[in-house]
Amino acid sequence: MAPAPAQQTDTLEQAVLAANRRFYAAFESLDLAEMEEIWAHEEWVQCVHPGWNLLVDWDVVRESWARIFSNTERVQIAISSVWAHVQGEVAWVACTEHVTTSFAGGFDTALVQAMNLFVLQDGAWRMVAHHASPLPAALEPPVQ
Amino acid sequence: MAPAPAQQTDTLEQAVLAANRRFYAAFESLDLAEMEEIWAHEEWVQCVHPGWNLLVDWDVVRESWARIFSNTERVQIAISSVWAHVQGEVAWVACTEHVTTSFAGGFDTALVQAMNLFVLQDGAWRMVAHHASPLPAALEPPVQ
Repeated sequence: MAPAPAQQTDTLEQAVLAANRRFYAAFESLDLAEMEEIWAHEEWVQCVHPGWNLLVDWDVVRESWARIFSNTERVQIAISSVWAHVQGEVAWVACTEHVTTSFAGGFDTALVQAMNLFVLQDGAWRMVAHHASPLPAALEPPVQ
Repeated sequence: MAPAPAQQTDTLEQAVLAANRRFYAAFESLDLAEMEEIWAHEEWVQCVHPGWNLLVDWDVVRESWARIFSNTERVQIAISSVWAHVQGEVAWVACTEHVTTSFAGGFDTALVQAMNLFVLQDGAWRMVAHHASPLPAALEPPVQ
């Protein structure tokens, strides 16, 4: 397909970055209904949580978020080093997550490198893949 | 765009899987010239090696492969749990890498979860992103 005009590409990229922010807001809110809105409900969606094996299929991915949310009391996520690219009706965002999680009786901080993949469906960018992996300890301050 | 006919999609998926195999063959061969053929030479290509920070831009990504290859005596990579999806002119492959690396004086084995992203350029699938992250120890036998 022909490249989109620059202005259209910028607008699409802004919409992708908004979808990416919405994903992290749903994560922070532990809001499963919102997470359901964000993801495409397809058999081929993929998700890798830090240190987990690959999950495939929306039903399986949804179940993983439900489990994570039910085991998490409170989580805060700041993102930095955000890189987005739009290619036709597919877009991806790489970013570094600075994750602070509260459990019963304690909290944990972690640095996570994420690749988030989105597909344009009915005019909205839906997440179709999330690959998050542990990084060594933070060397840079988080930027919200 | 309209969905491609099933047969065409299958053929495209086979070509993506072939590109993915070619990537691992180049990695095993420590062949930088072949790696240059496989990747798109774009400013926006992205690469995350296990435990590394995000690298952006082909020149930076190429330099990382050169460094890895020059520090590696021998590497063997078997892949398993391969999932591919084609969406227009973008495709991605998730797979588990079973990596055995030989250094001077020893060797190391590691299980790595990878997300490989490809874009169709001039009729060929070129790699535009590679995100590889460490997994806990192997629970399943590798399948070549």
